[in-house]
Amino acid sequence: MLRSCTAALRTLRALRGRREGASPAARDPVLVRRWFSTEKVIPKDYALPNPSWSKDLRLLFDQFMKKCEDGSWERLPSYKNSKLVKEQLSQAQLFTRGYEDGLGFEYVIFYNDDEKRTVCLFQGGPYLQGVPGFLHGGAIATMIDATVGMCAAIPGGIVMTANLNINFKRPIPLCSVVVINSQLDKIEGRKFFLSCTVRSVDEKILYSEATGLFIKLDPEKSLI
Amino acid sequence: MLRSCTAALRTLRALRGRREGASPAARDPVLVRRWFSTEKVIPKDYALPNPSWSKDLRLLFDQFMKKCEDGSWERLPSYKNSKLVKEQLSQAQLFTRGYEDGLGFEYVIFYNDDEKRTVCLFQGGPYLQGVPGFLHGGAIATMIDATVGMCAAIPGGIVMTANLNINFKRPIPLCSVVVINSQLDKIEGRKFFLSCTVRSVDEKILYSEATGLFIKLDPEKSLI
Repeated sequence: MLRSCTAALRTLRALRGRREGASPAARDPVLVRRWFSTEKVIPKDYALPNPSWSKDLRLLFDQFMKKCEDGSWERLPSYKNSKLVKEQLSQAQLFTRGYEDGLGFEYVIFYNDDEKRTVCLFQGGPYLQGVPGFLHGGAIATMIDATVGMCAAIPGGIVMTANLNINFKRPIPLCSVVVINSQLDKIEGRKFFLSCTVRSVDEKILYSEATGLFIKLDPEKSLI
Repeated sequence: MLRSCTAALRTLRALRGRREGASPAARDPVLVRRWFSTEKVIPKDYALPNPSWSKDLRLLFDQFMKKCEDGSWERLPSYKNSKLVKEQLSQAQLFTRGYEDGLGFEYVIFYNDDEKRTVCLFQGGPYLQGVPGFLHGGAIATMIDATVGMCAAIPGGIVMTANLNINFKRPIPLCSVVVINSQLDKIEGRKFFLSCTVRSVDEKILYSEATGLFIKLDPEKSLI
């Protein structure tokens, strides 16, 4: 719903620093992570392979990492906790990163600035079940929100989901890998219009398609 | 997405058995649970209070349980596992019941058959965070899907979400309680049209509103 989580902001700041001619130190991902770190130690980046990742997910990851080499695509890091909420509520953590490796949302999002696109490689684990053997629609909606939201947040800054309209066309088998493609279609003032598809790895099956409307927020204003 | 999970079917069969003049044994919830049990022991029903429930959630629960006394409303039980998936994948469990008490989705759904309505009392725990301090939009979409889906599944049997269209109007604070109201508006052949609101306990804040389209499936046909 809201894409202004600290982890997303860290990513945005790091990306912007690189693009806007920031100092060499700002381009150093370790230093950047330290500056915006939510903990005293460098937090774990969950958008990297772990032993639960299937062969399909690893292959796709490697393909996109290759695309990152010329700078056209960038892998977006992903963290679990935020300093703000740690102070308020020690147990709070990002919904999509609240599971042990392999049980829930295993994913990595890549961004292409020229094309204003995000691609999420997603493997939905056994704790995301809806009908037996298939992913819950809410889990699919969650990853669509995350992917579309990031596609709005990188150019837009702090944005909030105003609308998600999802057509579920085919059920997604549990523990399979899907590719979520999101595109920024239009900006009108503070409104960001986006579209999205969820497909099989071979692109032959269209599982879901969606549109999203996100509103750019004033970071100084309270959300409630 | 798909509302045909074993737990939902158990509920439906129990409800239908009662309505369609089933034997006294079929009206016995303990026996019904044993017949459709996913495990050798009677599975835990998660749609009951636990120590993590806030005062607001307990008060609302008590109010609805009172409404159940004259038979106009019914509390729907909620389980975590299904036999089918246990055979396929031992770790699989229902997305909305995959957390320890209080950390994720704490909820109970009530159904009113005369009004074709479901009401879900929902407390979103600290593992469902989106922007710091607020629920993730995907977690809200998940509970909307669950509530609207149950409203279609009780009269419709095995149904699949074809569309969810959600307007997010206000962010929901983490660990607060909201009331999700769903209404079956229309049936056209195999299509079930529903609407839904998410409001604060005092009904003053409209957090989200949504529409849903569900398609009745043939239980004999494969989903893929």
